[in-house]
Amino acid sequence: DFVRALDEVKPLFGVSEEDLSRAVEGGIIKFSPHIDKILETGAEFINQVKSNTTPLLSVLVHGPRGSGKTALAARIAIDSEFPFIKLVRPMDMIGMNEMQKIQYLQKVFTDAYKSPLNILVLDDLDLILDWVPIGPRFSASVLAAIKGLMKNKPPLGRPLLIFATTSEKTVLQQLQISFNQQIAVPNVNTQQELAHIMHDSGQFEDIQRAIQMIEETTGKREIGVGIQQVILGIQTAMQVDDSTGRFAEVMSDFISEA
Amino acid sequence: DFVRALDEVKPLFGVSEEDLSRAVEGGIIKFSPHIDKILETGAEFINQVKSNTTPLLSVLVHGPRGSGKTALAARIAIDSEFPFIKLVRPMDMIGMNEMQKIQYLQKVFTDAYKSPLNILVLDDLDLILDWVPIGPRFSASVLAAIKGLMKNKPPLGRPLLIFATTSEKTVLQQLQISFNQQIAVPNVNTQQELAHIMHDSGQFEDIQRAIQMIEETTGKREIGVGIQQVILGIQTAMQVDDSTGRFAEVMSDFISEA
Amino acid sequence: DFVRALDEVKPLFGVSEEDLSRAVEGGIIKFSPHIDKILETGAEFINQVKSNTTPLLSVLVHGPRGSGKTALAARIAIDSEFPFIKLVRPMDMIGMNEMQKIQYLQKVFTDAYKSPLNILVLDDLDLILDWVPIGPRFSASVLAAIKGLMKNKPPLGRPLLIFATTSEKTVLQQLQISFNQQIAVPNVNTQQELAHIMHDSGQFEDIQRAIQMIEETTGKREIGVGIQQVILGIQTAMQVDDSTGRFAEVMSDFISEA
Amino acid sequence: DFVRALDEVKPLFGVSEEDLSRAVEGGIIKFSPHIDKILETGAEFINQVKSNTTPLLSVLVHGPRGSGKTALAARIAIDSEFPFIKLVRPMDMIGMNEMQKIQYLQKVFTDAYKSPLNILVLDDLDLILDWVPIGPRFSASVLAAIKGLMKNKPPLGRPLLIFATTSEKTVLQQLQISFNQQIAVPNVNTQQELAHIMHDSGQFEDIQRAIQMIEETTGKREIGVGIQQVILGIQTAMQVDDSTGRFAEVMSDFISEA
Amino acid sequence: DFVRALDEVKPLFGVSEEDLSRAVEGGIIKFSPHIDKILETGAEFINQVKSNTTPLLSVLVHGPRGSGKTALAARIAIDSEFPFIKLVRPMDMIGMNEMQKIQYLQKVFTDAYKSPLNILVLDDLDLILDWVPIGPRFSASVLAAIKGLMKNKPPLGRPLLIFATTSEKTVLQQLQISFNQQIAVPNVNTQQELAHIMHDSGQFEDIQRAIQMIEETTGKREIGVGIQQVILGIQTAMQVDDSTGRFAEVMSDFISEA
Amino acid sequence: DFVRALDEVKPLFGVSEEDLSRAVEGGIIKFSPHIDKILETGAEFINQVKSNTTPLLSVLVHGPRGSGKTALAARIAIDSEFPFIKLVRPMDMIGMNEMQKIQYLQKVFTDAYKSPLNILVLDDLDLILDWVPIGPRFSASVLAAIKGLMKNKPPLGRPLLIFATTSEKTVLQQLQISFNQQIAVPNVNTQQELAHIMHDSGQFEDIQRAIQMIEETTGKREIGVGIQQVILGIQTAMQVDDSTGRFAEVMSDFISEA
Ligand SMILES: Nc1ncnc2c1ncn2[C@@H]1O[C@H](COP(=O)(O)OP(=O)(O)OP(=O)(O)O)[C@@H](O)[C@H]1O
Ligand SMILES: Nc1ncnc2c1ncn2[C@@H]1O[C@H](COP(=O)(O)OP(=O)(O)OP(=O)(O)O)[C@@H](O)[C@H]1O
Ligand SMILES: Nc1ncnc2c1ncn2[C@@H]1O[C@H](COP(=O)(O)OP(=O)(O)OP(=O)(O)O)[C@@H](O)[C@H]1O
Ligand SMILES: Nc1ncnc2c1ncn2[C@@H]1O[C@H](COP(=O)(O)OP(=O)(O)OP(=O)(O)O)[C@@H](O)[C@H]1O
Ligand SMILES: Nc1ncnc2c1ncn2[C@@H]1O[C@H](COP(=O)(O)OP(=O)(O)OP(=O)(O)O)[C@@H](O)[C@H]1O
Ligand SMILES: Nc1ncnc2c1ncn2[C@@H]1O[C@H](COP(=O)(O)OP(=O)(O)OP(=O)(O)O)[C@@H](O)[C@H]1O
Ligand SMILES: [Mg+2]
Ligand SMILES: [Mg+2]
Ligand SMILES: [Mg+2]
Ligand SMILES: [Mg+2]
Ligand SMILES: [Mg+2]
Ligand SMILES: [Mg+2]
Repeated sequence: DFVRALDEVKPLFGVSEEDLSRAVEGGIIKFSPHIDKILETGAEFINQVKSNTTPLLSVLVHGPRGSGKTALAARIAIDSEFPFIKLVRPMDMIGMNEMQKIQYLQKVFTDAYKSPLNILVLDDLDLILDWVPIGPRFSASVLAAIKGLMKNKPPLGRPLLIFATTSEKTVLQQLQISFNQQIAVPNVNTQQELAHIMHDSGQFEDIQRAIQMIEETTGKREIGVGIQQVILGIQTAMQVDDSTGRFAEVMSDFISEA
Repeated sequence: DFVRALDEVKPLFGVSEEDLSRAVEGGIIKFSPHIDKILETGAEFINQVKSNTTPLLSVLVHGPRGSGKTALAARIAIDSEFPFIKLVRPMDMIGMNEMQKIQYLQKVFTDAYKSPLNILVLDDLDLILDWVPIGPRFSASVLAAIKGLMKNKPPLGRPLLIFATTSEKTVLQQLQISFNQQIAVPNVNTQQELAHIMHDSGQFEDIQRAIQMIEETTGKREIGVGIQQVILGIQTAMQVDDSTGRFAEVMSDFISEA
Repeated sequence: DFVRALDEVKPLFGVSEEDLSRAVEGGIIKFSPHIDKILETGAEFINQVKSNTTPLLSVLVHGPRGSGKTALAARIAIDSEFPFIKLVRPMDMIGMNEMQKIQYLQKVFTDAYKSPLNILVLDDLDLILDWVPIGPRFSASVLAAIKGLMKNKPPLGRPLLIFATTSEKTVLQQLQISFNQQIAVPNVNTQQELAHIMHDSGQFEDIQRAIQMIEETTGKREIGVGIQQVILGIQTAMQVDDSTGRFAEVMSDFISEA
Repeated sequence: DFVRALDEVKPLFGVSEEDLSRAVEGGIIKFSPHIDKILETGAEFINQVKSNTTPLLSVLVHGPRGSGKTALAARIAIDSEFPFIKLVRPMDMIGMNEMQKIQYLQKVFTDAYKSPLNILVLDDLDLILDWVPIGPRFSASVLAAIKGLMKNKPPLGRPLLIFATTSEKTVLQQLQISFNQQIAVPNVNTQQELAHIMHDSGQFEDIQRAIQMIEETTGKREIGVGIQQVILGIQTAMQVDDSTGRFAEVMSDFISEA
Repeated sequence: DFVRALDEVKPLFGVSEEDLSRAVEGGIIKFSPHIDKILETGAEFINQVKSNTTPLLSVLVHGPRGSGKTALAARIAIDSEFPFIKLVRPMDMIGMNEMQKIQYLQKVFTDAYKSPLNILVLDDLDLILDWVPIGPRFSASVLAAIKGLMKNKPPLGRPLLIFATTSEKTVLQQLQISFNQQIAVPNVNTQQELAHIMHDSGQFEDIQRAIQMIEETTGKREIGVGIQQVILGIQTAMQVDDSTGRFAEVMSDFISEA
Repeated sequence: DFVRALDEVKPLFGVSEEDLSRAVEGGIIKFSPHIDKILETGAEFINQVKSNTTPLLSVLVHGPRGSGKTALAARIAIDSEFPFIKLVRPMDMIGMNEMQKIQYLQKVFTDAYKSPLNILVLDDLDLILDWVPIGPRFSASVLAAIKGLMKNKPPLGRPLLIFATTSEKTVLQQLQISFNQQIAVPNVNTQQELAHIMHDSGQFEDIQRAIQMIEETTGKREIGVGIQQVILGIQTAMQVDDSTGRFAEVMSDFISEA
């Protein structure tokens, strides 16, 4: 069902935060087997850390803009039921100078070192580093701090799982930030996947008509649009009577611009 | 009618500001069907947010210099009758350092989070970021703040519509600022559109003569000049007796330089 | 007559300043019809603002070094008899940091907003922005302030005319500073123009001999030297007995180096 | 045996630190004769300094990421039984400004000058210098300090052995940091080496099957993966029943990405 | 005569300074007619300013390193017998920050505005601007100050003559510093000029032998070395018995390296 | 004899410092006639200054890394028996900011101006300027100070001889630092020179065998290694029984890497 999925993610253990919940507010629509596979892999990493086999594990969650990286990382983190889960977003550090950002990050890691099982989600890591492709520019000292903190072994018996999300994987590679593992999050790519989401929304009567219109307008079968934009397109379409036609229009625009 | 249209935009609801009113001081001349379409699309975005279907919607209003971006965004915002509407201009932040600009922007967004329906107009967003093509230069920390604030979901029940204007669309793309939707504002492009504006001004007796002179001088039919310059040209022409001839001269200069 | 023309420009209305007067100290020699045309166009812009048709008008006065831009802008401004006229020079801001420069500029504009009719002359605008072609370098924050201030509509009933002078027109274009209108100031280009100035100075007995010598030495008829240098050349020549011969020498050097 | 090797490296002489011990927590698996050779060469450098033949000796330990540089340098240092051994890591200087970093480094060297036999391990020296390949960027003043300190002769009778580790040897060359000697640390390169490690772990029943699967998946015999990643791969494989199959999968991924 | 010529330049009028005197300590050897011509032209500029025909005159003294620019400018200045003469050297501003340099320069000009006849010698102007060709780098704010100060008309009746020396004329051009006039200072270029200097020194018995040896060693007749180096060569040669032979050696080295 | 030569350089006159002595701790082995020539030339410069013929003389001592520049400059300085000799090293300025470095350098020169005969050794001048080839970077303000101080004439009767050492001669040229004279210090280049040093050390029985082994391993007769590395190679070889064989190994490595 397409309504807000907030209740579903309410913090059960007192550790996940409001922000984390809001990240999966829109729910996770399983529009393709990839989504299940991602959640499964995430669960495996949880176990590897939970069993204390690996005391420090870093996982890069990468994919196109709006493909659902943050929502999926948040979902996996919440489902771990770890006592300490923390979402770190660029937004949380607005207006801080470099030194303050570093202190904030140090505090986050130090907090994590105190709980028996820990997850940090570094959301939009490229933006945490103030990355801008023009220049290019970034905060070298925050980068140094992130590298040091991500390589630092937590105290014995305090295993730490780090998720970092980004739509700029190559940037992180160029900045020489290493991760132990990676999860790739795909766009909505096939007509079938799109149909799944439309059906799930309960807003459309003739799904096939919309899909056909999109194919005609764009002249191709590939969708290549993030789940986030697809949901926005549905919301725009909901404003008018011919929601099917309007959705086809909006999606065609998104596909052409992609 | 060509006289100042200030009264028409007087704040009706106590929320729009003096600045917003002055932005549409010159009125909106409907010199082409595009103008109606833009106002209509704007109204649809207003509804999408008003109905709380989409709690956060960002719209880029882009087009050549002087094409009327600010006036149109202001017009749409004023017509929404939303209780909170705020125009943010580069001018308002002159002499602030980066940290002060960020605090100012945070204050603006925080204010918006307090009212039930909100519109922010970020005017000349490229200049808010201190963008200069030579270098190029820009304020990386203000950019980071804008990205964070524009991606941050407002509190539940406080939907926010963000308009940003720019004549440098590709710059914002290179800086990786994402928008949910876009509105393109065109120049005055055809002779017919120019004639419409001349007629609307009530200043010219022989509109066709002027148009013909322009075509002869410039050697082409396309105008390609922003509405703002066209209006300035009329004002210059008004100073002399042969306003028609003078207008043709001035417009020809503008067209050649464009 | 060639003597200092200071008295002629003494502030009549208590508003123009010492600096403005000194800028036209050397008088305006009408060595070509262009000079009359420039003064005339300037007077038209004065009227457009005086009549309050256009509340904000910006004019770029551009041309080669020493061509007389500052003197002409000062002349036009003084002749307007506007109650508020202000010359803003790079020299006035030496030793100020960026923030102080911005405050100074804000003060200048704020002062202008208080008088019923206003002219600002931003002399050597490229240098006000600390422009240096090597780098290139400039003050991005002063640029931002200038852009904001030049685009800001003055209060109702306080029309403002802005003149900016520069010998670097393309620089201002690259920095994306827009002007409503432009005035091009030429060098002394023809032998006839040079003869006019020599005659005006009352220093030479055989003007044609000098001109012929110059043509022989340089091998061309074009002069291409600013009025400022021509006047300096006359002053150098005045030191010796054969002022005609010496003037030809000095001018030939200037022409060759130009 | 594959269990944590912490006890084995407990500080015996009160000088090596917790950090140093943790660096060889995973033990040293002698998967190839290179490892013995490295330890032997290291012991020779220890003797050269211990005998006071050479009062200042600097050794660069370089190799691919995760190849075991830090563990080997720590091992050699601990085995020296020198009274003063100090590990200097980028992590230890997070949040320090350049001046503080320099003071920290000066303190470390000054401390070393007080003991009769001294070893400093500068771990990830490129990161101590805040090196980032994009730009490239680094801290010029910390670099200057490192150069000065590494060239400074210790007081008579206080010989100092400096190990520096890096996976960016060419960077240090370009930055013109000179070393007296070098130790190259290789990846796990052959199937035989990999089999050695797998056997050592005691986690696999059919080592040859895994190796064969890897060769089939990757299509080549070379491994080319650091010991650190190999150990992580074993830990991941340990989570599932078919650890042999899973290890082959994970290793194949690592080999393909390398 | 070759002995120190300090007495000759002792301040006669209480205005020229110790530094100015030391700049011509080595005297001015009139090794070529160029030297007389330079001194003569300098005297003419003095007159042009003294007669108050030109209230502000700037002269660039340029030439190769060690060619005698500073000594000649100092000589001309001292010979003017103006009440205010000031030598401004990079050395005088060592350790000042940009703001302090600007204040120092403002003070120098302000001082000059107080006396009836004034000369400023800006020695090594490129270095006053902290110019370094690598980068290139320079102090943009000191440059802005210099431009402003050099363009600023002194008070009525306080004419100012500015000499600036540099061996980097093109740099000053690129930095867009304008001068009203220029003086080019040449190297010692011919054998005859060199012989003149050798003779003047009274140190050599067989001048022609030395010259012949130099021509043989270097394989050319051109000298192309600054007067400063020639004098140093004589001083080196004075240390040994065969001063003629040694001088030929040293000069040949200088010529080859030039 | 190869033992430490410290005693030999003990300060005799109370002016040379501990640092200066340590710089020639390893003695000067006269492995080639070049070494004698360098010491002789140095002595001549000493005389030129001592006799007060030249009040300010600057000499650049340049050559490959480890070729013995510092030891030779120190040797010449100590042998001068001047009352004031000062070694200035990058190490002495670690942790100083630019302003502090400049003050330190000013102090050093001011101290020198107080004694009747003075020598300054600016060791590794490129590093005193914080030169790094990547960027490239350097301290522009320290460079300006060095230029000013090196050009500044000392008070009458206080002649000053400045030695500067560097392995980056072209860098100093590009930075436009001028020297009056130069001394080039060569590597150990021939087998004969190497044999001289080996013999001098008294550590080898069969020198020719080592030389032959080196030629065979490297495939060439040229050595091209600095004296400093050769001495280190001997020290390494001294640790093992077959010192001859080990020396050949180590030297071959050094030659290959050079
Ligand atoms: N299968 C899914 N995977 C991920 N998100 C989903 C899925 N189904 C629905 N959603 C919803 O789609 C939205 C995805 O947005 P999200 O912010 O997570 O994307 P993102 O990739 O992090 O975007 P960005 O690149 O801007 O950071 C969320 O609102 C989420 O609830
Ligand atoms: N159809 C129209 N659309 C927009 N503006 C119009 C229209 N008709 C008249 N105008 C007037 O034209 C002017 C447009 O100027 P405006 O500042 O909005 O342009 P802009 O595109 O924002 O310029 P800039 O690129 O400088 O920001 C306003 O004064 C407005 O009142
Ligand atoms: N027709 C003229 N136009 C302008 N200036 C004239 C004219 N006739 C004489 N002058 C004198 O010539 C001089 C022109 O100098 P001015 O400083 O105005 O030139 P400029 O173009 O502003 O120079 P710069 O490029 O250095 O700013 C003034 O002294 C002015 O009095
Ligand atoms: N033969 C070996 N050599 C080195 N390390 C080994 C060896 N055998 C096992 N190990 C273990 O492998 C790991 C090597 O990791 P280490 O951090 O030393 O690598 P590194 O090269 O320093 O990595 P990085 O490039 O990230 O700095 C350690 O945990 C160590 O205990
Ligand atoms: N004809 C001459 N012209 C100039 N200097 C001369 C002449 N004859 C002798 N000298 C002496 O030569 C020296 C010239 O040095 P000076 O410092 O003036 O040269 P410079 O061109 O300013 O050098 P730099 O390029 O280093 O600034 C002075 O000592 C001066 O006394
Ligand atoms: N003939 C020689 N010349 C110079 N140094 C020698 C000679 N013979 C022996 N030595 C010794 O060799 C060493 C040379 O090292 P030194 O530091 O002077 O070299 P350098 O060229 O200054 O090195 P760097 O390039 O690192 O500054 C010293 O220890 C010195 O005592
Ligand atoms: Mg996200
Ligand atoms: Mg606008
Ligand atoms: Mg001017
Ligand atoms: Mg390591
Ligand atoms: Mg000079
Ligand atoms: Mg040295």
